[in-house]
Amino acid sequence: MSLQQELLQLGRQARQASNALRSLSRGVKDEALRRVARDLRDAKAEIKAANALDLEAGREKGLSAAMLDRLELTDDRIDAMAEGLEVVAALPDPVGDIVHQYVHANGLRIAQIRQPLGVVGIIYESRPNVTADAAALCLKSGNATLLRGGSEAIHSNIAIANIFSAGAEAAGVPAHAIQIVTTTDRAAVGEILKMDKYVDVIVPRGGKSLIARIYEESRIPVVAHLDGICHTYLHEDADPDMARQVVLNAKLQRPGVCNAMETLLVHEAVAPLQLPALAEALQKESCELRGCERSRQLIDCAPASDEDWETEYLDKILSIKIVSSFEEAVAHINDFGSHHSDAIITESYLFAERFLDEVDSATVYVNASTRFTDGFEFGLGAEIGISTDKLHCRGPMALEGLTSLKYVIRGTGQVRE
Amino acid sequence: MSLQQELLQLGRQARQASNALRSLSRGVKDEALRRVARDLRDAKAEIKAANALDLEAGREKGLSAAMLDRLELTDDRIDAMAEGLEVVAALPDPVGDIVHQYVHANGLRIAQIRQPLGVVGIIYESRPNVTADAAALCLKSGNATLLRGGSEAIHSNIAIANIFSAGAEAAGVPAHAIQIVTTTDRAAVGEILKMDKYVDVIVPRGGKSLIARIYEESRIPVVAHLDGICHTYLHEDADPDMARQVVLNAKLQRPGVCNAMETLLVHEAVAPLQLPALAEALQKESCELRGCERSRQLIDCAPASDEDWETEYLDKILSIKIVSSFEEAVAHINDFGSHHSDAIITESYLFAERFLDEVDSATVYVNASTRFTDGFEFGLGAEIGISTDKLHCRGPMALEGLTSLKYVIRGTGQVRE
Repeated sequence: MSLQQELLQLGRQARQASNALRSLSRGVKDEALRRVARDLRDAKAEIKAANALDLEAGREKGLSAAMLDRLELTDDRIDAMAEGLEVVAALPDPVGDIVHQYVHANGLRIAQIRQPLGVVGIIYESRPNVTADAAALCLKSGNATLLRGGSEAIHSNIAIANIFSAGAEAAGVPAHAIQIVTTTDRAAVGEILKMDKYVDVIVPRGGKSLIARIYEESRIPVVAHLDGICHTYLHEDADPDMARQVVLNAKLQRPGVCNAMETLLVHEAVAPLQLPALAEALQKESCELRGCERSRQLIDCAPASDEDWETEYLDKILSIKIVSSFEEAVAHINDFGSHHSDAIITESYLFAERFLDEVDSATVYVNASTRFTDGFEFGLGAEIGISTDKLHCRGPMALEGLTSLKYVIRGTGQVRE
Repeated sequence: MSLQQELLQLGRQARQASNALRSLSRGVKDEALRRVARDLRDAKAEIKAANALDLEAGREKGLSAAMLDRLELTDDRIDAMAEGLEVVAALPDPVGDIVHQYVHANGLRIAQIRQPLGVVGIIYESRPNVTADAAALCLKSGNATLLRGGSEAIHSNIAIANIFSAGAEAAGVPAHAIQIVTTTDRAAVGEILKMDKYVDVIVPRGGKSLIARIYEESRIPVVAHLDGICHTYLHEDADPDMARQVVLNAKLQRPGVCNAMETLLVHEAVAPLQLPALAEALQKESCELRGCERSRQLIDCAPASDEDWETEYLDKILSIKIVSSFEEAVAHINDFGSHHSDAIITESYLFAERFLDEVDSATVYVNASTRFTDGFEFGLGAEIGISTDKLHCRGPMALEGLTSLKYVIRGTGQVRE
């Protein structure tokens, strides 16, 4: 069988499974998730053996220590993965929720009901726990999953997917509900992206170039988060203690994630008072600063280039700009940001409300750290990613983001006049 | 200025307008719509003069009588267009609706609020009333509009768009909120589809080839309806009177629209009893029938080819298939349909519920005509199209479909632990 035929077969099987999954009861889905959690815990040795092959190949390929750490599955990490499935099992089932129902003048009962999307294609890199996380969210929301992980984690991913799929099937989930692409042939991604007859949505998780390629090539709708270029803006009346606390948290609590701050904007009225102390506190934590010309008159740091305003460092680096007005801050965020998460620090009712209205981002904050943008923190119980798209799902994407609304209409023979 | 530069300028202007439109009050938007309605009524002579140029060019190009009729703007049609704007003005404003709000354990107040998408690109063919309808829905939902109509209606479209834009601006709407592309150069569509920095969503309205081209080329998310291949399935216990009434309505009340039935499925148990009378009633109304082999043993009609099951006739033509089971009917609808609108006629509680669950379409009906799938009938007050996409918006797309949800979070200095 050619690669294309192989993938088309996976696609057909996924579509068929999705037709059965659509009306699978919550009881079966939850029991399957709990069973897979037990199976994963019981199969630690098997999973670690597969993982060892990936780690060995990674070392030979010269992966960095950080990459190897992301790749490694320890007993604790396998336990955490299993626990994640139990958390998803405990979440409410979104399928079948009636969002709206009313009776037409002619007696038709018209309802909008939440339904699975169908088949979800997950294209991801590195961390093998995504295999279990993504499959769990898709199963709970009644979707069939087609997984395509990165080649670095291929053995780990296949081991986890096989345990997941066998456990789910034993618990009554239809065959082929969870499938993984076993080839590492890079052409497979291109073939999947053409299968719009069988795959309803692509959720990419990975680096910028992977996501850019998928947006470019896909014939299937994509929901992805691109960059997280997040801002904190200190308005002219920002409380200095709160500003300091929030800025340090947003930049340094975990710099390598998409909701960490990348650019600090400071109103010119408070810059002389607050920026020097702030800069000192950041530099004390080994944070590199890159400032605009005006900030470099107040603090000692490297100059920021135009490129800096559009860069997601994912590291202990912060760009700093002094602005002359609230309007300049908002314009900077809307022009250079990635519409992910942005915050204002202010005591002003008027400017707090204006910031929430005027900044065109998925999540906007007053007086809080951007680090809260997260499916767990927002009470969604889990997340499959954080969308910076505006259509379908904005911000953390979880069970509800894996569904859409269907009109269900009950009549007694009504016809249109 | 090159075509590309010209369009980029429209895009930049639209983005700027959208930033101001986002927080424009309902009062201003509604007053603008009512004012434009008055202006359109007052400018009948001007609009008809522009329309006469299009009609003349259409006659020269040899457009069919039906096409010329679609193109023509009479006093009554201009009045209807104006009335449409008043209807939109009277609809509730979706912007700012709080869909969900709760307080995090740490005191953060987390809300999901409905917001405009930003800039909506409408690419459409023929009927010039779409210019006013689409601009009105976009304005009401706080979006800037970039209109690109078909060349046949270019003079009419420009006249309507100019009146709309001037009237809206006079009523306090920001400049460039409604813009129309004035060139008929076909390359303009391609350039617009690349402007993902300035346009947030493309809504195409028109023929299959236009929509296919847009899906193929667009770097901007597209919400469109493709075909409406709608089915009615007569289950083995279908009431013959109801079946006859619904089938005739679904096929013949207005055959040229997307929610009209294209294929009739009949359970083998009722085919001998019901199909001959049904066929006679349809043929009496000059409806051409194309049947599967089994149906041709019961009724006199042309044979249906495989292609027929995937064809949207938009005409007085009906394909007919006899099925051996409920499951065969559902599989046929899911495989060959376009996931638009499908109905079952049955007295069975079990099979009614199964049909609603198992048919994967935007709108599913028990005992009613598929002709009801429509924004007005569903109480949305208007529609910008009917989506057969699953993401973002399924079925009739109106004001809510032109918005998305933004997380708005109010804190008192919270940081992540």
